[in-house]
Amino acid sequence: MGKGKCRIGLIRVVSFADEGIANLHGQLIEERFPALSVVSRCIPDQPEGIYDDATEAKAVPKILELGTQLVEREGLEALIVSCAADPGVEELRRRVKVPVIGAGSAAASLALSYGTRVATLGITEGTPSVMKRILGSHLVGEAKPTGVKTTLDLMKPEGKQRVFDTCRALVERSACQVIALACTGMSTIGVAKELERETGIPVIDPVLASGFCTWFFLTR
Amino acid sequence: MGKGKCRIGLIRVVSFADEGIANLHGQLIEERFPALSVVSRCIPDQPEGIYDDATEAKAVPKILELGTQLVEREGLEALIVSCAADPGVEELRRRVKVPVIGAGSAAASLALSYGTRVATLGITEGTPSVMKRILGSHLVGEAKPTGVKTTLDLMKPEGKQRVFDTCRALVERSACQVIALACTGMSTIGVAKELERETGIPVIDPVLASGFCTWFFLTR
Repeated sequence: MGKGKCRIGLIRVVSFADEGIANLHGQLIEERFPALSVVSRCIPDQPEGIYDDATEAKAVPKILELGTQLVEREGLEALIVSCAADPGVEELRRRVKVPVIGAGSAAASLALSYGTRVATLGITEGTPSVMKRILGSHLVGEAKPTGVKTTLDLMKPEGKQRVFDTCRALVERSACQVIALACTGMSTIGVAKELERETGIPVIDPVLASGFCTWFFLTR
Repeated sequence: MGKGKCRIGLIRVVSFADEGIANLHGQLIEERFPALSVVSRCIPDQPEGIYDDATEAKAVPKILELGTQLVEREGLEALIVSCAADPGVEELRRRVKVPVIGAGSAAASLALSYGTRVATLGITEGTPSVMKRILGSHLVGEAKPTGVKTTLDLMKPEGKQRVFDTCRALVERSACQVIALACTGMSTIGVAKELERETGIPVIDPVLASGFCTWFFLTR
């Protein structure tokens, strides 16, 4: 590990006007990994973020452009795409020479190091396909809270309550050993720790997971 | 994270008489994660370790007994089984209430957070089944150095040279993005960093990977 901090880029897939909210995922990572300095950027014109195939398709070209800029013009040493669907991650890996970590694959991967029965809890219908592919036969349950459509719904008080109710039922139904949160909006509302206390099993925050994997590959 | 160190157990699946060698994997983890204090123990009567199905079957009951003791009698907060085959890991998870991390699943899992094309390099014929299961369709290549049968062979000078030759050919043949080392004897000879310099792609050390994952689950 070098002496200075590693400067990494983090791509938000929601166009937040509020800089505080836009920087929140980066701050979570900086607090946990003081060796990383995070430059956060939002993609333009997507105020509700990614919550289905159409919104994902719309976001990908913007993610590729932003990611390439962050590496080529700003010299950042790694990229995080802060979305559990890993939009653009595979293509960015072909475009830039630095590690590209997706929040969805990071959370799914870390879950597999903990146990063979993994459940996911997100906001989309079904687990994001990248997480499904990584978890394979180890995916034993999946759930989304009713009445939550976009990441913005999670930020309302009833959104958080619904996450709790859904999570309890998921653990009971699936007998999972570990939960991988399948939406980085869950990181925005900081719910992983509380869900762990509630369920008694590890609940993986996808933003922290992506920070952890980035840190691993930069500092090994 | 608490203020004190987390005391964890590490099970060596080779019966080393030399305490320095027995403690080496634990030391690698302690150097990298000062928050972890590692108690290393060897299973008895297995001087050549695990290198095929028969030696794995022989080791598993000893691993289960040792792991249970480390948690129940010595109060350790997590267990690492320092073998890429994850022998006994699943069963230990049912027996003890603390995180149980296997070096093989940890290395395979972390590889998946980095890329979709993963190759393994070990000493057994074929990738250990736990790594194969986790990597699924992302496993694009596997290799073992010729003339290396047990972890002890790796520790000879010609063993290391053969690892290098095999690794170069593996990267060329498989076009992998990342290599997960599939034998913790590779950690003993500290070869991951050198292989990275040689190949230009990340090479995951399974002992460090297990340390990373243990640290993640204890300190999230």
